[in-house]
Amino acid sequence: MPDGDGGWQPACPAPASHDGERITLAYGEGGRLTRRLIQERIVRRFGGDTLAALGDAAVFDLPAHRVAMTTDGYTVTPLFFPGGDIGRLAVFGTVNDLAVSGARPRAISLAMVIEEGLSWDTLDRVLASVHDALEATGVSLVTGDTKVVPRGAVDQLFLTTTAIGEVFFLMPGPKGMEAGDALVVSGPIGRHGAAVLCSRENFGFDPPPVSDCGSLLAPIEALWKAAIPVRCLRDATRGGVAAVLHEWSMSSGLGMTIDALAIPVTPDVRAVCELLGLDAVHLACEGTFVAAVAKDHAAQALETLQAHGCESAAVIGEVTATRSTPVRVRTASGREIPLDEPAGSPLPRIC
Amino acid sequence: MPDGDGGWQPACPAPASHDGERITLAYGEGGRLTRRLIQERIVRRFGGDTLAALGDAAVFDLPAHRVAMTTDGYTVTPLFFPGGDIGRLAVFGTVNDLAVSGARPRAISLAMVIEEGLSWDTLDRVLASVHDALEATGVSLVTGDTKVVPRGAVDQLFLTTTAIGEVFFLMPGPKGMEAGDALVVSGPIGRHGAAVLCSRENFGFDPPPVSDCGSLLAPIEALWKAAIPVRCLRDATRGGVAAVLHEWSMSSGLGMTIDALAIPVTPDVRAVCELLGLDAVHLACEGTFVAAVAKDHAAQALETLQAHGCESAAVIGEVTATRSTPVRVRTASGREIPLDEPAGSPLPRIC
Repeated sequence: MPDGDGGWQPACPAPASHDGERITLAYGEGGRLTRRLIQERIVRRFGGDTLAALGDAAVFDLPAHRVAMTTDGYTVTPLFFPGGDIGRLAVFGTVNDLAVSGARPRAISLAMVIEEGLSWDTLDRVLASVHDALEATGVSLVTGDTKVVPRGAVDQLFLTTTAIGEVFFLMPGPKGMEAGDALVVSGPIGRHGAAVLCSRENFGFDPPPVSDCGSLLAPIEALWKAAIPVRCLRDATRGGVAAVLHEWSMSSGLGMTIDALAIPVTPDVRAVCELLGLDAVHLACEGTFVAAVAKDHAAQALETLQAHGCESAAVIGEVTATRSTPVRVRTASGREIPLDEPAGSPLPRIC
Repeated sequence: MPDGDGGWQPACPAPASHDGERITLAYGEGGRLTRRLIQERIVRRFGGDTLAALGDAAVFDLPAHRVAMTTDGYTVTPLFFPGGDIGRLAVFGTVNDLAVSGARPRAISLAMVIEEGLSWDTLDRVLASVHDALEATGVSLVTGDTKVVPRGAVDQLFLTTTAIGEVFFLMPGPKGMEAGDALVVSGPIGRHGAAVLCSRENFGFDPPPVSDCGSLLAPIEALWKAAIPVRCLRDATRGGVAAVLHEWSMSSGLGMTIDALAIPVTPDVRAVCELLGLDAVHLACEGTFVAAVAKDHAAQALETLQAHGCESAAVIGEVTATRSTPVRVRTASGREIPLDEPAGSPLPRIC
């Protein structure tokens, strides 16, 4: 919490409706009003002794020796989109960064930069969403920070979440990949990118694409419990599945070949891609990972994923020995063509 | 690091001068250019195996059982001010939040939101400053995130730093305060607030006030090593020393009385306060703490602080049994008057 928010409960807090409809600068300046925002909107909602102590830092026990830490800033626009919002995205995005690193989140922090004039209703909707996402993953909000900046200094609301977790699943990483390994995706790809794009541009698709924004912890724990020899995992966010495969190719020195017909894509995302000339492999996911799995265990990996909420999990290709072309796609006609890595995405502020 | 930045070194990176003078949106979108920014500006500068691995999360050993975690967003304007800049502020602010919680920082993360068009020179100056501050405190940057947002979506550059540390100094906290405890400050107060205010408004003070932005770890470790019975510590950031004393009064149920003549204030800060009608106790510090210390050990605490870089450390008052008036100031004439807690600060974007 920002310095200046001692762990006390105002004797007689005014109801939130007394705040007016919009957040003013004074709520960010570390005095009485900041404390009120934090008590009424954060501590009451999220509870927990560690958070409620409101010290300069959260103090808690972390028995693990091997830990994982990750941070992400969220600047998505619009704040709300089909399938999620910036709050849900911030929690699951950070939880997923730990999950694909084989770590179970233990504590999370939330730093907010709020634009003067943001409505309390918007803030409350986002915080409710943060709360629900934390509940769904069983992770505690332990500390945070709130800044309110003058109108125009930030676009509505930016969040930064940082999480620390205990490593349970040790994977060799891209350097441990071998030619022949199966490339698996946990579900239909490109849903988040398509949802944000359509939500922003109002293309009028009906039904609109819905983001896959969600937690990857359960299916990854399932892979670990089933003792599947997973070489590495990555959630396919900015840059999509294509970016993950390019990175893995560069890290491992191996090639990646995927089969266009094997890639799960929902009809709504397919429609968006066809109309706008996009390829789903370049669109961001926010609840879908790519895994490289020892070939002999690919079928078992799929069964495990399908039994744990990833009904559309699929083997989409394999690791190859040569990388004269780092990533290749086998098209419907059977021809293999290079899959480019884009220099920059056509879509800023996707997350 | 953002998803999409595998741990690879480009075979033949172009020199930074090929980037043009300003940062474009494409550098934030997770592809080749983001990777280049991260490799050339971050990994090369900060080094370290944990950072260079560039996984979705940093994985490292943390043997401590009892840990402290803190996060802070930095939106200060201007980015550079006498005595510091946003990078130095972000590192020391977060390190100090751990230090006053009795924890030694072990790992820190850095999330940046960059406005399209920010100059590379500005970014490099800030990152050099982050680097120097980390070196000074011996803490490793282990992970980060970079977003570039369109012009107007953020004012230049916002940083969020999160740190995790090992608790070495167990203090009872405000509830462990007792009437008679000495209130100690580690140095002259209000320097950061005065420096940012003057830097922003160009009042033309000569010499201008210089921020106290710096690490509090060494003097706090010294208090611990000297076994001083410190009840609680807090760095006096937003809201200044006044905010700290008000919080402690509320948390402890005790009163705080300070002596106007005992409070160390530098001549430049005094001049600013006199001219602008401000009180230094309300101005932010970024390298100065308030401590409540058992009365019999106040002299020893001062000696210890003075021997560890806090030459101006002073006892400024004491904890009192009653709190009909939570915080009181004994003026030069000997009269005791209430010290108000401001509802909101007159100075947004101080940190």
